[in-house]
Amino acid sequence: MRVVVVGSGIAGAATAHQLSRRGAEVVVIDAGLTGAATAAGAGIVSPWTARADRNLAFAMAAGEYYRTLVEELAEDGRDDSSFEVVGGLVVRSDTAELREVRERLQTRAEASPAAGVVELLDPGEAREFFPPLAAELAAVHVSGAGRVDGRRLRAALLGAARNRGAQVCEGRVELDVDGGRVRGVHLAGERIGADAVVVAAGAWSAALLEPLGVSLGVVPQRGQITHLDLPGTGTRTWPVVLPPSGHYLLAFPESRVVVGATRETGSGFDHRVTASGQREVLEHALTVAPGLAEATLVETRVGFRPATADGLPLLGALAEHPQVSVVSGFGPAGLTIGPYAAQLVARQILGEQVGDELAPYPPERAG
Amino acid sequence: MRVVVVGSGIAGAATAHQLSRRGAEVVVIDAGLTGAATAAGAGIVSPWTARADRNLAFAMAAGEYYRTLVEELAEDGRDDSSFEVVGGLVVRSDTAELREVRERLQTRAEASPAAGVVELLDPGEAREFFPPLAAELAAVHVSGAGRVDGRRLRAALLGAARNRGAQVCEGRVELDVDGGRVRGVHLAGERIGADAVVVAAGAWSAALLEPLGVSLGVVPQRGQITHLDLPGTGTRTWPVVLPPSGHYLLAFPESRVVVGATRETGSGFDHRVTASGQREVLEHALTVAPGLAEATLVETRVGFRPATADGLPLLGALAEHPQVSVVSGFGPAGLTIGPYAAQLVARQILGEQVGDELAPYPPERAG
Amino acid sequence: MRVVVVGSGIAGAATAHQLSRRGAEVVVIDAGLTGAATAAGAGIVSPWTARADRNLAFAMAAGEYYRTLVEELAEDGRDDSSFEVVGGLVVRSDTAELREVRERLQTRAEASPAAGVVELLDPGEAREFFPPLAAELAAVHVSGAGRVDGRRLRAALLGAARNRGAQVCEGRVELDVDGGRVRGVHLAGERIGADAVVVAAGAWSAALLEPLGVSLGVVPQRGQITHLDLPGTGTRTWPVVLPPSGHYLLAFPESRVVVGATRETGSGFDHRVTASGQREVLEHALTVAPGLAEATLVETRVGFRPATADGLPLLGALAEHPQVSVVSGFGPAGLTIGPYAAQLVARQILGEQVGDELAPYPPERAG
Amino acid sequence: MRVVVVGSGIAGAATAHQLSRRGAEVVVIDAGLTGAATAAGAGIVSPWTARADRNLAFAMAAGEYYRTLVEELAEDGRDDSSFEVVGGLVVRSDTAELREVRERLQTRAEASPAAGVVELLDPGEAREFFPPLAAELAAVHVSGAGRVDGRRLRAALLGAARNRGAQVCEGRVELDVDGGRVRGVHLAGERIGADAVVVAAGAWSAALLEPLGVSLGVVPQRGQITHLDLPGTGTRTWPVVLPPSGHYLLAFPESRVVVGATRETGSGFDHRVTASGQREVLEHALTVAPGLAEATLVETRVGFRPATADGLPLLGALAEHPQVSVVSGFGPAGLTIGPYAAQLVARQILGEQVGDELAPYPPERAG
Repeated sequence: MRVVVVGSGIAGAATAHQLSRRGAEVVVIDAGLTGAATAAGAGIVSPWTARADRNLAFAMAAGEYYRTLVEELAEDGRDDSSFEVVGGLVVRSDTAELREVRERLQTRAEASPAAGVVELLDPGEAREFFPPLAAELAAVHVSGAGRVDGRRLRAALLGAARNRGAQVCEGRVELDVDGGRVRGVHLAGERIGADAVVVAAGAWSAALLEPLGVSLGVVPQRGQITHLDLPGTGTRTWPVVLPPSGHYLLAFPESRVVVGATRETGSGFDHRVTASGQREVLEHALTVAPGLAEATLVETRVGFRPATADGLPLLGALAEHPQVSVVSGFGPAGLTIGPYAAQLVARQILGEQVGDELAPYPPERAG
Repeated sequence: MRVVVVGSGIAGAATAHQLSRRGAEVVVIDAGLTGAATAAGAGIVSPWTARADRNLAFAMAAGEYYRTLVEELAEDGRDDSSFEVVGGLVVRSDTAELREVRERLQTRAEASPAAGVVELLDPGEAREFFPPLAAELAAVHVSGAGRVDGRRLRAALLGAARNRGAQVCEGRVELDVDGGRVRGVHLAGERIGADAVVVAAGAWSAALLEPLGVSLGVVPQRGQITHLDLPGTGTRTWPVVLPPSGHYLLAFPESRVVVGATRETGSGFDHRVTASGQREVLEHALTVAPGLAEATLVETRVGFRPATADGLPLLGALAEHPQVSVVSGFGPAGLTIGPYAAQLVARQILGEQVGDELAPYPPERAG
Repeated sequence: MRVVVVGSGIAGAATAHQLSRRGAEVVVIDAGLTGAATAAGAGIVSPWTARADRNLAFAMAAGEYYRTLVEELAEDGRDDSSFEVVGGLVVRSDTAELREVRERLQTRAEASPAAGVVELLDPGEAREFFPPLAAELAAVHVSGAGRVDGRRLRAALLGAARNRGAQVCEGRVELDVDGGRVRGVHLAGERIGADAVVVAAGAWSAALLEPLGVSLGVVPQRGQITHLDLPGTGTRTWPVVLPPSGHYLLAFPESRVVVGATRETGSGFDHRVTASGQREVLEHALTVAPGLAEATLVETRVGFRPATADGLPLLGALAEHPQVSVVSGFGPAGLTIGPYAAQLVARQILGEQVGDELAPYPPERAG
Repeated sequence: MRVVVVGSGIAGAATAHQLSRRGAEVVVIDAGLTGAATAAGAGIVSPWTARADRNLAFAMAAGEYYRTLVEELAEDGRDDSSFEVVGGLVVRSDTAELREVRERLQTRAEASPAAGVVELLDPGEAREFFPPLAAELAAVHVSGAGRVDGRRLRAALLGAARNRGAQVCEGRVELDVDGGRVRGVHLAGERIGADAVVVAAGAWSAALLEPLGVSLGVVPQRGQITHLDLPGTGTRTWPVVLPPSGHYLLAFPESRVVVGATRETGSGFDHRVTASGQREVLEHALTVAPGLAEATLVETRVGFRPATADGLPLLGALAEHPQVSVVSGFGPAGLTIGPYAAQLVARQILGEQVGDELAPYPPERAG
């Protein structure tokens, strides 16, 4: 079976990898556009600390899945997934509130063992985990939370797919429709035939399906995310930090702390760092972690999350065009749930039964 | 007469130009270090709106002098000084305070005609001058305030000096001292003899004089300054904006607004954009001008102002080494008063009487 | 001392204000006729950019004087002079010609500091100052050029005079002559006695003096001037534009650009917008500033300038009737030189020595 | 039979009149919007001088029809149609070209006797017809050309309809659709039932039909048209003037000459006189008729012509909604062909056979 995967962010790369692993002949084609969410995103893998319960089971399964993924990548010659379990801190200044958080997370951890251990930390302890933290913040620590570098994970997934025979190209494609049936894609005038086409083009996915008369409910939501550097400070083991604001802090090797991000609905594909976006990101970060004040501002990345109206992803085959499957709409959760979702869709394309897992996410719903 | 000028920021370039115009044989040598204040600075030329009266007459004379400077540059083949009179807005939310400001500035404008006309603007009018301004801010408008692009002015000054025969080199120099007398400099092992040496090395000036046992009272004070862009908005005619915070806003062509700056005493030569510096600059700018919220953050520049303890410049010949003159210590005011001060020192070096104007600024005082 | 001022355009209002400030008892009487030049005029205050040198020193003194006027109005409770220094652009397509212009203006600026800074702008820069400008036009920028709204300045002057005790009336007056001596005026049958009468009735001044057998050399010269609006464009900071044609462009808040004007000698008091006048004004404006093509045509104003044969004003007391002084004949320059001239005549009426300044403008000369 | 006519410009007023004359119970409802083409339009009735042959027969029939219309209005108590046959001048500077024009018009006049007599005039003769004409212009004179004042004709048509029992209201309506069938309109919440609805809302017609899913191919095309006055000159008998530019000149009693008009496709409903529009109109008028230079510019009217892509009107019943008829899309020709077209549609609504005349103008075509 021959499959064209359009898009090679986390969704496309993971789908291609899974298809390749399962024996499909895969061509991945990416437009190379500026603002890919995977390249800009933070990479927190901590579904257990989500504030709401909606979609929780799916997300926790995705969290669980990461370890399978790391193993599969290793099987396919790639040890460099970048995924690391570093633990996470849900921080609050109100201890009573933290006790509720702990109870909730414990319940979840019982259902999803990858969450690890859930514990209360007083402010002094929390700062030992994350030294720049504000003195008044206590925390619930969740040991199973992880982080991943989107760029490196994507590279690993594509490398693994190539190792399994996949072909990776760059260019803008259009669907090849013949007699109402999608039969592949056109790339720079050339026709690439396929038994199935996967649309995994993130925030740009809707445009691809327009010629079919399908109005995909995904729009770009801009995120601005800032990379700080703490010269001479080893940050590799620092946990991810999850404040109540929705903004987060996330350490990376060697001495980097990533803070963010804005969630700018209605941004369109306007790829800019803005004065107010930068202020918002720094204001939140320095309130939670004043110890970052003297950190170097290295860069601010801009990405367009593929956002849906109901906050849920768009997954699986189109009703009228079963040759076309969608893996998109992850919003800010692409690096958390993308690989798991990709794996399910890949199996569906290859004719496997994937149970009811994709049922809540029909791509053509009025998102 | 042969003069070596060490440093080619605003102070060195202006001194070299004036010396060349007056017939001296000039060699300018710059170390090309990162963080030159002239390259980073904002370039507001508005001495009349200073908060304090100290040093006011000198600064206003420097403001008046810009007109002469522009003409002299034109005579020397450079029409590109970048200096433009765009007016300035002293903004306040308190009208009573503004009336005091107006009275103070009118008194100053009577003494210094280049200040132009001084007028009260209500908030609506102030926003017509600077559309992003906060709705509640009224202003005193001073029509004679100007702006200059430090990089471009420096290039024009050096170009004009070259047109007058000056030589401009790059490299790190040391003083050539022979028998207790300074006889030139060493540049990359080579000796360049001179009748006089001008130390105009900004925040780096002190190190040059150490071998003479002279402890110059100048230290680096870091400034972080941010360049915003308002796509599609013509900003050339917008006035400079002077809020009570000491931070400022300053438009440049085509669509740029420059906001800043931090004043980080004790920074040393630590050339970094910091999280807290960036936040401070944006916080001030967006409080004064909320209309900049969606502006693009283009870059943040870092410069080291040559700061003195008493806030006054260091000007003129050393007592023990009359062959060495200093033109430094301008703090944040280098682009305002540097050219005027440079002209006075150049004339002094060439034996002219410059009256008492340099008397308050002996370079060896315990700044 | 009691003075009746006939006419309350810029000349009469400014004279009344100056007289009131100096302690005279003043009655201002205006006929309220259609076509007053002050209400229609553009209000460019830029004597430095005049093409010819004739009358230049007087005009430049008048330009300098505006700053004093603004302060005096503020002292008398009026902050709303509307005068603003916005800079001016002398535009040309021929760069060599512009260099000559620059030299001429620099010489003038040296003699008259209120001219501000004189600089060459290339076409791209000129358009940043005045975005609708034709692409091929370069400019000389004169930072001290100002603009004033004649209607608002007149209101401020009359208000300030009232605050100083002046009385402002409406009606048509005739001179009250008794025994060959002017002793006041008749207004609607009533006699208003006065020690002095100021004839400041603009283009209508001649008729007033006919009963004295004085033939004043002033005739109406029609000007048609068009107000355009650029919806949504903030124009407050745009400079005045002075093309070679003698027509000009002049921005006002909020989004208005005023273009004009015709100079229709021999028009009489024929108060009409004509087809050819409107075409001429638009043709010139759109040639110089094609970017105004889509501006809204809001209104076209018609005013009658008080024109003299030699282009110079009529100022001072009549030889045979020293109780009667004239302040008229400003042609297109009333808003530029009117206030300064009014101040001189007011001082002369009150017995001050005003030097030779009024000598070139005897009102009874064969203009 | 009860008919609601939406719109009371020339199309709606004429349709209502014809329906009333034929016994229908008519309600006319107009939204009273700014920019109605009928109120702004020039009113030249000269189909014979059209440059192209397309649609010529229909237009000539409409020209012929005017005399019937005038008679019918008189029957219905209205003598004030304003229609007058004043003749027309097709002006050219090239005599050879004029000879071709004459031949073409003669052929047409043979087919359409209302064209009257076709004759060549040399420049001197042409100016006798229209004194302000440029000296070099010769002309072909067509004696049957007429003019009509759109506002007055509309008033007469509505008055005549009222005399026949029609009701005329103001307000915005929506179609009343019940079970897929149009059963009248809603006006301010009230339902007005009707057996037929006529959409004659000019440039606004498309919006009315949107709820039916009908996309009517009519968009607003702005016209700016200027009214000049020649004080003391009797202009009533002056012919219409048709230059090659497409602009025209048209005299009206007492001393008025109307010149225009711009044809601004893509204008939307942007109701403004623009600088470029005013210039274009005056430039054309004064080139053709320099004698208008000193005319008073009285006003410039702005109207939105209902333009179609193919330049042909939209006439007759909708295919899917036979209860709804359209009378729109006349572009610049509404005052020429509107009354004739209205009469045909009125008859069609009442069940008469109108032959093939409406066949070329189906309202739902992709205009």
